[in-house]
Amino acid sequence: MNDVILLVDSVRQGSRLALGRLLTQVENDTEEGRQALFHLFRYTGRAHLIGVTGAPGTGKSSLVNRLAYQYRHPAEGTPARRVGIIAVDPSSPFTGGAILGDRVRMRDLAGDPGVFIRSMASRGSLGGLAATTAALVDAMDAAGFDIILIETVGAGQGEVDVASLSYTTLVVEAPGMGDDIQAIKAGILEIADILVINKADLPGVENTERALRGLLQLAYPTSHTLGGDFDDPASRGVGSVHSGYLAWEIPVLRTVATDGSGISVLVTEIDHHREYLQNSGGWTKQERTRLESQLDHLLKAELVARWRKTISESRVQSVVDRLASRELSPWQAVGILLDGGGG
Amino acid sequence: MNDVILLVDSVRQGSRLALGRLLTQVENDTEEGRQALFHLFRYTGRAHLIGVTGAPGTGKSSLVNRLAYQYRHPAEGTPARRVGIIAVDPSSPFTGGAILGDRVRMRDLAGDPGVFIRSMASRGSLGGLAATTAALVDAMDAAGFDIILIETVGAGQGEVDVASLSYTTLVVEAPGMGDDIQAIKAGILEIADILVINKADLPGVENTERALRGLLQLAYPTSHTLGGDFDDPASRGVGSVHSGYLAWEIPVLRTVATDGSGISVLVTEIDHHREYLQNSGGWTKQERTRLESQLDHLLKAELVARWRKTISESRVQSVVDRLASRELSPWQAVGILLDGGGG
Repeated sequence: MNDVILLVDSVRQGSRLALGRLLTQVENDTEEGRQALFHLFRYTGRAHLIGVTGAPGTGKSSLVNRLAYQYRHPAEGTPARRVGIIAVDPSSPFTGGAILGDRVRMRDLAGDPGVFIRSMASRGSLGGLAATTAALVDAMDAAGFDIILIETVGAGQGEVDVASLSYTTLVVEAPGMGDDIQAIKAGILEIADILVINKADLPGVENTERALRGLLQLAYPTSHTLGGDFDDPASRGVGSVHSGYLAWEIPVLRTVATDGSGISVLVTEIDHHREYLQNSGGWTKQERTRLESQLDHLLKAELVARWRKTISESRVQSVVDRLASRELSPWQAVGILLDGGGG
Repeated sequence: MNDVILLVDSVRQGSRLALGRLLTQVENDTEEGRQALFHLFRYTGRAHLIGVTGAPGTGKSSLVNRLAYQYRHPAEGTPARRVGIIAVDPSSPFTGGAILGDRVRMRDLAGDPGVFIRSMASRGSLGGLAATTAALVDAMDAAGFDIILIETVGAGQGEVDVASLSYTTLVVEAPGMGDDIQAIKAGILEIADILVINKADLPGVENTERALRGLLQLAYPTSHTLGGDFDDPASRGVGSVHSGYLAWEIPVLRTVATDGSGISVLVTEIDHHREYLQNSGGWTKQERTRLESQLDHLLKAELVARWRKTISESRVQSVVDRLASRELSPWQAVGILLDGGGG
């Protein structure tokens, strides 16, 4: 039994030490990491991947923390679920971005073998944040975590890519964030499956909720006709639940991560979204999109690596020289590098 | 004279209509856009590219607006400079992300032929936000703008890439943003040439400034020994200016974009940074990095496009099928797609 097989086996047996080592190998894109993922890939596809995104200051790290705690300590009669956390957000306390205080809040999770927290140390050696995150998610998935929370900051292409890894995306807002409306981006609304107003004990929460509902109405003007139960205002309060979940209306939920208010409702809505995806075929579709994008990233990296082997660095530098002197345009430079000539 | 030559000539003559058309073609990566850039590339490399980044709510759009106004209305005896603005930030009013109010603030710039504002409509057809932004920058540069302000939201790999396009990067903070420190990310500090505390009329500005200076001290513990004038507290207030600008100490400046406070000092510091880059060789080095990264993006896109032509979509889909059923791992799928076999 070689080292890789031993590593794979230990990860499957639930060894935290082995998982930590695997994640490091995967993040650094080592041969050992690749081989281990090769063996582990068949065990993936089971975890519920949940993206949690939002601007700094919305308290999304605390929310992630509290969600994990809730999954570990559910209502009586419900089984606890194993939770992996991947923090991609550079402002997250999980990634060491915050300087003060936040670590204290993680005490509730410390020492729980059913929780594994991993922050992204680097910005993606596999050729991008999204590709590295995808590989880390695969490793945690194969290690048997039921829930994988992926925390990202709510902006930028990289983060939208990361969100596209998830089956369910929570977009987190908070009352009174800057110009209020300005913090809410059209692009972010497009990726939201559930909108969470965290810090809902702060003044201005009504304004934030009204603004979010208004934006949803603008973005999805016809969606209110999808279901039949929208005349009941109570159902709107926690999102509109359709019989069998064959349609999804984005719920707007209030939470206070610091005292746990609203968290169990949020967990219920996340489970409803999973049911909706599974009933509507969305789960399979989303998984396929995820795999295609993963394949695409790896293909690009491999194509570039192969091409790099066919050309000397001095040749590349001489073309860059001619680019810098404006003798060549970028497209001409590409042509010369790929087809030769022009030397 | 064909259409492309006419377009190129009109852009060089200062036609706003032609520039608008060119930017659309470039953003959509059309053949016309590529050909026009091919002809225009020799005129690039003159503009001072300035990245303006920071979290939503820091007022960076207003700051960009006010900076542009300042460049257009300088102190007597100083020539006005032509300003291009590229808004990559999805929360920017320039991109239409904000719903209310902000447009009013743009009135000061409306109708000024020396200002051209462009927002990114799409998320980069050239194969990424950064590649598309680089091409838009080239077009504005060739059109003769002296200053190009690139507004991005301060987070994520995409935005770091965009910042790497700039010669001078402003990182914008504001007092009392969420957990204060949490909004300040290690990765963002690394890219800052100038730190701006906007909304400096708000309470808490002293705390924010102290926190920023503390972080700078942590990040650059030795830099205070670079110059000789750091015993003069006054010089720290507007950043430390070295004789001939052969070293650069990141200044921390206070501004109030809404009333213009601190903006002329900021413009002076930006000019100092340009002098520093030009004297230290940093300008040439930064330009080369920029061109290499531009070349890299185009090469990747072209390699993938060429490979795609050699393979049928049904072949790709059959490999994705086997990936989805976990028969293949992603790396095996790449091998099969690039080397054949395994069918």
